[in-house]
Amino acid sequence: MGRRAIIAGAGALPLLVAAAGPAIVVRFAGAPGGTDGADLVAQFERLGALFADLKSHGVDELCLAGAMRRVGFDQARLDAETKALLPRLASAMGQGDDALLRSIVAIFEEQGFTIRGAHALRPDLVARAGVLCGQAIATTDAARARGVLAAIGPLDVGQAAVAAQGQILGIETLQGTDALLRFVGDTMPASGGILVKRAKPGQDLRVDMPAIGPDTVALCAQAGLKGIELQAEHVLLLDRDAVYAACAQHGINLWAVP
Amino acid sequence: MGRRAIIAGAGALPLLVAAAGPAIVVRFAGAPGGTDGADLVAQFERLGALFADLKSHGVDELCLAGAMRRVGFDQARLDAETKALLPRLASAMGQGDDALLRSIVAIFEEQGFTIRGAHALRPDLVARAGVLCGQAIATTDAARARGVLAAIGPLDVGQAAVAAQGQILGIETLQGTDALLRFVGDTMPASGGILVKRAKPGQDLRVDMPAIGPDTVALCAQAGLKGIELQAEHVLLLDRDAVYAACAQHGINLWAVP
Repeated sequence: MGRRAIIAGAGALPLLVAAAGPAIVVRFAGAPGGTDGADLVAQFERLGALFADLKSHGVDELCLAGAMRRVGFDQARLDAETKALLPRLASAMGQGDDALLRSIVAIFEEQGFTIRGAHALRPDLVARAGVLCGQAIATTDAARARGVLAAIGPLDVGQAAVAAQGQILGIETLQGTDALLRFVGDTMPASGGILVKRAKPGQDLRVDMPAIGPDTVALCAQAGLKGIELQAEHVLLLDRDAVYAACAQHGINLWAVP
Repeated sequence: MGRRAIIAGAGALPLLVAAAGPAIVVRFAGAPGGTDGADLVAQFERLGALFADLKSHGVDELCLAGAMRRVGFDQARLDAETKALLPRLASAMGQGDDALLRSIVAIFEEQGFTIRGAHALRPDLVARAGVLCGQAIATTDAARARGVLAAIGPLDVGQAAVAAQGQILGIETLQGTDALLRFVGDTMPASGGILVKRAKPGQDLRVDMPAIGPDTVALCAQAGLKGIELQAEHVLLLDRDAVYAACAQHGINLWAVP
């Protein structure tokens, strides 16, 4: 059996996954999260070099962990492998983030790597069904937000929505959950609403699992919300203890439903 | 034939509709838009008194024009007619804005009033299919935004969405189009995207027709957008000359599609 590499993006997840066992940490130059602590610094323009490096280190298992963002790249620096992959990546890019990630995963798999999800390496971080902190509240609002997410999920939009008193106050777009929460706090402070966070149907949980952390909880409180409903088995808590502590501190109810 | 009354909310529409012919202007105390220039000031708690006042003025035709917001009311001041209508209004309120408006329209119709839409009184303000200013741009982005609105419209959410380069950057919620545009400008300045504005399928155009004004155009420009796509025959321009002038001034393309 070979070694594991973590393709690390931003946030707490790469470190949490690294704690699951020995792994080579790969970071991309110019990506969010920086390159500190990386065992290997990769270039978006030189995927061929990355494949070769990983193989020379005996890597056969990859975990993509932490947020990545689309970044520009320097055409002049493309290696042959990356150049050959460009039409495929460009076509996927036009179809949204899910399609792009699926395409990247397929490319790694074709190179012989096995993709392992962060949730498989750290099952203790996965939100299980039930009340996690406080109690389940505003369940009709939660159902309304779930309805909106179910409607747009197939279009690769919306991992989260906010509802209060029968009204939808915000729907997550490209800018992410934090931006959504700031919008709701700015425009409808003290709504007492809830955040519903779920995976999109097309989302590959191995490489793009929704997650909340203590900062998400603090932002919910600042936005005047009273609770967070997660999709059970589909959202990571980064990490569990810190999220529970933040809920207790800020008076946020947290629960998960199928 | 009787007289026409305009139930006036906020914004420019009540005055534009008043220019269509003689009418009694009714404003609600505490509603947005204030009560200046009203021929009749009504109370949300005293709908029975309003029905009687309108009938005593010989009114048989009503035009509801301009934005209304849900407001609190004083239980102690309810007249008998309003008290009898409360369970019906409360039930509709739980089902969203469209349901509430449909219920209010039904109540006026049961009282014998004919509801006439602002678009019927001022057909010159309705956006017709075709290019209105500049040219039609970013048509794949427009199609993507239309797809999102079509998915959530049946849930009584979303009269507008912003898309750029294949990505959805914002979806209108309760806070309205202006708040959506400010969010996009704050979080994704200079996206070069477009705003798509359409009616929800359940929307009664007689009383709740989407509208844009010169301020909408200016906000689009401030948010870094390059164009606005409207649903032809389903959006009002308030008013047409001012909107066209704002598009020219801010370099915003404007067009309408079915």
